[in-house]
Amino acid sequence: MPRKGDKQFDETAVLERAMDLFWEQGYEATGMSELVAQMGVGRQSLYDTFGDKRSLFLSALEHYADTYQGAVLAVLEGSEPPLERIRRVVRMWQEGASGPHCRGCLLANSAAELGYADPEISEMIRARLRRLEDAIRRVLAEAVARGELSSDPPPRALARTLVAIANGMHVVGKTSPSKAAIADIADTALALIER
Amino acid sequence: MPRKGDKQFDETAVLERAMDLFWEQGYEATGMSELVAQMGVGRQSLYDTFGDKRSLFLSALEHYADTYQGAVLAVLEGSEPPLERIRRVVRMWQEGASGPHCRGCLLANSAAELGYADPEISEMIRARLRRLEDAIRRVLAEAVARGELSSDPPPRALARTLVAIANGMHVVGKTSPSKAAIADIADTALALIER
Repeated sequence: MPRKGDKQFDETAVLERAMDLFWEQGYEATGMSELVAQMGVGRQSLYDTFGDKRSLFLSALEHYADTYQGAVLAVLEGSEPPLERIRRVVRMWQEGASGPHCRGCLLANSAAELGYADPEISEMIRARLRRLEDAIRRVLAEAVARGELSSDPPPRALARTLVAIANGMHVVGKTSPSKAAIADIADTALALIER
Repeated sequence: MPRKGDKQFDETAVLERAMDLFWEQGYEATGMSELVAQMGVGRQSLYDTFGDKRSLFLSALEHYADTYQGAVLAVLEGSEPPLERIRRVVRMWQEGASGPHCRGCLLANSAAELGYADPEISEMIRARLRRLEDAIRRVLAEAVARGELSSDPPPRALARTLVAIANGMHVVGKTSPSKAAIADIADTALALIER
């Protein structure tokens, strides 16, 4: 009998397939049998490695956040001038929310689907959105300190609004395939930092 | 045998209970048995009146839009000065997205949960969001014509952004019980029309 540690598969690649399925279909619509089929791993190995569907979902959500939100955080914590970093991030969101069959943002989708129904999932999403908000706030505060941005609205309020716009842009992208609409939202979001 | 038209129950009250359950839990997580129990109507009457779960969901979504989006549209089509109508609507969204256990907006939740998975539901949500965008755009264009609002960003872009902010505010409200965060987003949204 193989011990628990004897992985015969690439855990990250397998987790990514689960993430894709949850991202495509949502949490409730995705069944464990479908996950087993999609992940190309035996049911028992799946349970041994990731636990039940809810645990697997939490791992997939963490992986999503590390990957996609991680790329955004890397730009925000980079060395470009502060407002340039914000501009690049808004364009990353725009890119993600455009396209013919936008899957939205897995964090926003999960917030909308699950909300407070599962306190642990809810807290994890809240913490991730808060981390994004904090990173944006710090960059905006730097721009204010450099005299490149008005302090009204204050960095925290503006950061919260940009996070809401990112979420809203992905919700709009999930039903409306209009690149022009998403571009309008991104441009208007940037107008908030151009004064 | 009662004919199909012989309703022994208040259709709207029953539909409202279904809407509440879908709003609370989402589409996939809500089973037909639970709906039968919650709606207080026999399973057969439910099928005769509303069809299957998907048809019932579409009716509940229409009812939600008529009620909640209807109240917003009534303000937008009212007789107050244009920017005052926008202010009132943003405060209505703020109110809806605040509170300890915000259920979000059923249209935004459904967009995030179902996206393109069901073309008819997706099209219905898209049309409703578009209707809101058009109503806001008309009010903003009126404010521009009266010299009360800059035409940059243009009314359409600003309307799209306000719809995205409304959706994003509700997503944020679904995981973060911070009234202050929602108020910050509403205030910043209003700053977009105060120049």
